[in-house]
Amino acid sequence: MTFGRTADLADRVQRLGTETAFAVSAEAAVWREQGHTVYPFHLGDMDLATPPNIVGAALKAIHDGKTGYCPNAGILPLREALAADVGASHGLPYGAENVAVQPGGKPVIGKFVLALMNPGDEVLYPNPGYPIYESQIEFHGGVARPYGYVEGTDNFELDFDALEAQVTPRTKLLVFNNLQNPTGAESSPEELERVAEFVLKHDLVVLCDEAYWDIRYLGASRSLASLPGMDERCVILYTFSKKFAMTGWRLGAAIGPTLIIDVIAMLNVNDESCSNHFVQWGALEGLTGDQSGPRAIIAELRRRRDAAVELLNQVPGVTCFNPESTFYLFPNVTGLMERKGFATYDDLRRAALEETGVSFCTRLHFGRALPGEHEFYIRFAYSGISVDLIREGLGKLKAWAGA
Amino acid sequence: MTFGRTADLADRVQRLGTETAFAVSAEAAVWREQGHTVYPFHLGDMDLATPPNIVGAALKAIHDGKTGYCPNAGILPLREALAADVGASHGLPYGAENVAVQPGGKPVIGKFVLALMNPGDEVLYPNPGYPIYESQIEFHGGVARPYGYVEGTDNFELDFDALEAQVTPRTKLLVFNNLQNPTGAESSPEELERVAEFVLKHDLVVLCDEAYWDIRYLGASRSLASLPGMDERCVILYTFSKKFAMTGWRLGAAIGPTLIIDVIAMLNVNDESCSNHFVQWGALEGLTGDQSGPRAIIAELRRRRDAAVELLNQVPGVTCFNPESTFYLFPNVTGLMERKGFATYDDLRRAALEETGVSFCTRLHFGRALPGEHEFYIRFAYSGISVDLIREGLGKLKAWAGA
Repeated sequence: MTFGRTADLADRVQRLGTETAFAVSAEAAVWREQGHTVYPFHLGDMDLATPPNIVGAALKAIHDGKTGYCPNAGILPLREALAADVGASHGLPYGAENVAVQPGGKPVIGKFVLALMNPGDEVLYPNPGYPIYESQIEFHGGVARPYGYVEGTDNFELDFDALEAQVTPRTKLLVFNNLQNPTGAESSPEELERVAEFVLKHDLVVLCDEAYWDIRYLGASRSLASLPGMDERCVILYTFSKKFAMTGWRLGAAIGPTLIIDVIAMLNVNDESCSNHFVQWGALEGLTGDQSGPRAIIAELRRRRDAAVELLNQVPGVTCFNPESTFYLFPNVTGLMERKGFATYDDLRRAALEETGVSFCTRLHFGRALPGEHEFYIRFAYSGISVDLIREGLGKLKAWAGA
Repeated sequence: MTFGRTADLADRVQRLGTETAFAVSAEAAVWREQGHTVYPFHLGDMDLATPPNIVGAALKAIHDGKTGYCPNAGILPLREALAADVGASHGLPYGAENVAVQPGGKPVIGKFVLALMNPGDEVLYPNPGYPIYESQIEFHGGVARPYGYVEGTDNFELDFDALEAQVTPRTKLLVFNNLQNPTGAESSPEELERVAEFVLKHDLVVLCDEAYWDIRYLGASRSLASLPGMDERCVILYTFSKKFAMTGWRLGAAIGPTLIIDVIAMLNVNDESCSNHFVQWGALEGLTGDQSGPRAIIAELRRRRDAAVELLNQVPGVTCFNPESTFYLFPNVTGLMERKGFATYDDLRRAALEETGVSFCTRLHFGRALPGEHEFYIRFAYSGISVDLIREGLGKLKAWAGA
């Protein structure tokens, strides 16, 4: 009887990745349990409450008996509301038929890959980027081709040379995360035009990960999907997690051309039947009801962003952009590494945790370093830490770095 | 620009199945909207309320801030409670490490297949059976090999000849749904022994779909996993949907050897991060709190079962077992087909709907007919219809059949 050996698992399991950031959370928890103060900048989670009108609507739905199955692609009113909301912000005539509700934003990644990628197909994905792109591509037999970002004047910019260099005749899909985790990068109108040209030139289909669309402090978000010829090629990843502080509720949607959305909805039939029924009624209230909740969330995140950017730029050897979207900062810490004599990311991260309590992820939690990458970056998330603790923690980091 | 043609979808999409039972629901809804009475025996959903202590615990969890992410494999107290509950009923020493919480029972099917099946591997699956097994196997490149059931004295029995006949050197996995949808089949101790021997003989790993484990009216459920040598080869599909009337809450679990559960939990990282956080606290109350809710649900289902079995056996040309588990009946309607002169399942189903309002699924909603299959069966679900309507509807069916 041979079962029990790793060899009995499917071959694809060897290609399955994970989010190594969870290990940072675990280390921080251990450090805290040992009695130390921890300043949690490693979390992508939020410490803010879900707006009470959403909670109330979900509870009402339970009492109204919305506890049985609902349609696989979601309740019609929510699909309509999402089509209206995203359609208006994107200038596109989406209808309910363009929307498949999902148990989170993340499920859109795997379903997009399964619906469109054959084994051996190549997929361009951002690195540094959300590590699940690479994992899902490789798990399902594709070839993941990374592209990176370079420092511009005000923010990170797409490295178009890297992007073009990765294209081959097998390239079929592009994962594009404008309003980017971890860099906070955001495309200018000119950059978006260039991406659209690139997509048409190479005949690609695009996953537009817009998880942070509504997390912005100035101006308006722009989507690749809004550019001419792009709507039929773009599947938008939408999530309720950030705007409404609903990370643990697990609700999102895939929005795009019906040819793809129909397949994604059939994957819902197969993978999970439907998303939680009453949570969808809560989300509908979030989209269509009183907006003071999301406004308060943005106001709080802006205060945190302002404090974190100001203080990080005071840390010797650290420079940090001031992105108007996402709740992430991706400071360049090359100077700090040199000052303190650290050779590796983990040396810096562990020393900072143990000597200041400041806990963060590094560039390596968002993919392997690219060839020719010489600068060092770390990622600060300010979604799970108060302004007071930001000031306290980064004050300690500043003193430590200067010592 | 070629996008928009079906050819641009991944090849595997052509092998993706669905649940054709949804089309029956849609037809019944149209008939009802036209002003007709419909007796809904087609639903696998439940019309019973989730017990209030579960609702209360979920709401308390929201107010306690359990609205952020939780661990990928589920909150520890729920994993421990599931290990204790399923461990006790199965006589197995499961611990939290053997449990990965899922957004429903259904997600266990796809994750089991992805964790263990290579393209070209063969998987034995029940037919008639839940159609998602075949769909997930074929979608991910496996070969789905059906086995059937035969009528025994008191209930359906496994067709061992068919099972053995389907084995080849490529056979790697068995999907086994004791307490079966749609037949209500349940293995005797002797039959379970024989399945265990079969599993060892052919060195298989087993998905034990036990979605209906706690839906029983007499005696105790038995699991293949409890037999000697089986625990290391069996992954149990557990769901909160039926016992606690929580179908729309979407919560279940995979329970089995850590080698496989660890992979399934890593698939949770990739596919959906985690299951809804506060729903897990509700489910924990369901497992560990006041049990009057599930007892009332079983009492109501038993009344329905008794009424439905009694009346179905009075319908001319219909014979029906009286299974002690599941909320399904799978009456033999060969005589009825002959009496009424119907040649196809759809003729029978549509005529019954239009002439009596009784709506049900047929054998063909649970797989293609097997070679040599000559008897006709339909599936009645009594989870979504009251005793009074069962009596009224089946009274009409009886009169119609006798006319």
